[in-house]
Amino acid sequence: MSILVVGSVGLDDVQTPFGRRHRVLGGACTYFATAASLYTQVCIVAVVGTDFPQEHLDLLASQRIDLRGLQIAEGDTFFWSGCYRDDMDVCETLDTQLNVFADFHPTIPEDLRDAEYVFLANIDPELQLEVLDQVRNPRLTALDSMNFWITSKKEVLTEALSRVDVVLLNESEVRLYAQDHNLLRAAQCILELGPQALIIKRGAHGAMLALREAPSCPAAESVDAGCVGERFFIAPAYPLDRVVDPTGAGDTFAAGFMGYVARTGDLSLGGMRRAVVHGTVMASFTVQDFSIDRLRSLTWEELQARYENLRQLTFFEPAKGDEFPTFSRTLV
Amino acid sequence: MSILVVGSVGLDDVQTPFGRRHRVLGGACTYFATAASLYTQVCIVAVVGTDFPQEHLDLLASQRIDLRGLQIAEGDTFFWSGCYRDDMDVCETLDTQLNVFADFHPTIPEDLRDAEYVFLANIDPELQLEVLDQVRNPRLTALDSMNFWITSKKEVLTEALSRVDVVLLNESEVRLYAQDHNLLRAAQCILELGPQALIIKRGAHGAMLALREAPSCPAAESVDAGCVGERFFIAPAYPLDRVVDPTGAGDTFAAGFMGYVARTGDLSLGGMRRAVVHGTVMASFTVQDFSIDRLRSLTWEELQARYENLRQLTFFEPAKGDEFPTFSRTLV
Repeated sequence: MSILVVGSVGLDDVQTPFGRRHRVLGGACTYFATAASLYTQVCIVAVVGTDFPQEHLDLLASQRIDLRGLQIAEGDTFFWSGCYRDDMDVCETLDTQLNVFADFHPTIPEDLRDAEYVFLANIDPELQLEVLDQVRNPRLTALDSMNFWITSKKEVLTEALSRVDVVLLNESEVRLYAQDHNLLRAAQCILELGPQALIIKRGAHGAMLALREAPSCPAAESVDAGCVGERFFIAPAYPLDRVVDPTGAGDTFAAGFMGYVARTGDLSLGGMRRAVVHGTVMASFTVQDFSIDRLRSLTWEELQARYENLRQLTFFEPAKGDEFPTFSRTLV
Repeated sequence: MSILVVGSVGLDDVQTPFGRRHRVLGGACTYFATAASLYTQVCIVAVVGTDFPQEHLDLLASQRIDLRGLQIAEGDTFFWSGCYRDDMDVCETLDTQLNVFADFHPTIPEDLRDAEYVFLANIDPELQLEVLDQVRNPRLTALDSMNFWITSKKEVLTEALSRVDVVLLNESEVRLYAQDHNLLRAAQCILELGPQALIIKRGAHGAMLALREAPSCPAAESVDAGCVGERFFIAPAYPLDRVVDPTGAGDTFAAGFMGYVARTGDLSLGGMRRAVVHGTVMASFTVQDFSIDRLRSLTWEELQARYENLRQLTFFEPAKGDEFPTFSRTLV
């Protein structure tokens, strides 16, 4: 039930209305691994430079993260700098230095190639394919990507999308890929490539799970057929009165999802839904502090409490049959 | 259990990627009354000009809508023209002609002043106050507004907000009023004016109900206190693979909410939640055709089916206690 994750480990400069942090631990792989390690064993496949602080390596190791697949290459570590304005919805990237990541090719240690759960964080889809070529018969593979690859390497990305079980993208990325503003039709376009499920991340609006097919709803059916309630699941974001730094929200959403699935092994419809809720809850903690600071002190009880709050937040009763016993209006 | 609604009845020119309609029946009051008449008796207080087609009057009357408060004044009817681009999220207003609406003052027929449920559609807050001065002891009052009044008549609007039970605004309006991008804090700002509930309309992302207080959560508590699941309710928009014309979505959301409350008389927490779901379901039908065309043929069975679909769409099970019996990770 261990998870193999391939992606970036880096150093970030981040500025938000709540402050600024210089060369803090960042990267999709770091965020994912830290959050997912709450659920199960996580193995990182990534690269850092010789400038990468030993304290960061110690921190990752102390979280029981398997670092055997972390290469240390001559040169500087991947560096990213971004700024969030008042509305926190849009991040302006100020600088990206690939550094040692430019020549990175994932090499998966022999005994990790049997990992049951594989998460391909947002990296060049060619590297994602290299990983898929190396792993043997994983139980579940999932992939994240971004606008940049959709625009610049759509063909390669399409192949990667067609080879994984679960695709995670945000709302604008789904629309961009499908060239369709309607989210249901855009989701259908991606599901037709082959994945069993698409999870659409909607930031402050939560997430939507779209399944290629469901027991009473074959793949060919219209997306707005009667089984819409079975093929789709919508979870809100956990409401917060203070968001400090949105960096890593998407990566830790994926970690909550994959972590829950890996820990429970539950790939049923209900299990996938609970996994999505774990994703949205995990992301809500991430954004309450800079870097992985909130995640480091996160407890299972805190996760559970928000999970239950979210259930209460979204619960409503069935319509009562007797509310409209004599309903008979016929509009002209 | 009848509903009194005050607002605009007008003629619209609308253009969307799905077509264009010329001088069709429009106005917040029209949309609201048509949708709410599915639930209960609705009384309109509004004004039209002498150019208003008799067929529209006949149509409204055929929906059992009480038109005794509809004034017919010398001059032209309120006219609005708008255009939705491909993304359907933003409406560009091309023209607004107040016409007879410019001199409108609501006069509520004597026997309608005892209406139990009063909805103040989006009009000048001074007129909304005039209505509140005329009605006698309503059971529930609700109000809609828009950016224009928040910017131009904030003081008057604030008085109106403080005198109603339920406020309905969209996300950007809540933020604009409170001058705070964080939605929970912005909601708190409005609730502190006096209303028991604020419903934040989020378009394609659904709606959030925020209560000033809840049984185990007094008004003074932090918005992110443990009772967040009790004070807030979040419902998604009903997913659609084709949106033809978003005009009237907000007005008919209000109609589903008010209609359900008026019909059932249920002001409990659970009743308010079901009412919000009726709002989101009603709006989903509205946007599937131009003007009130989809609403005219809407049946109770169709409403019920989407209500149940939405329940299935959002349902997930409680966390299972035995999933993490040995959970013991302590992050450093």
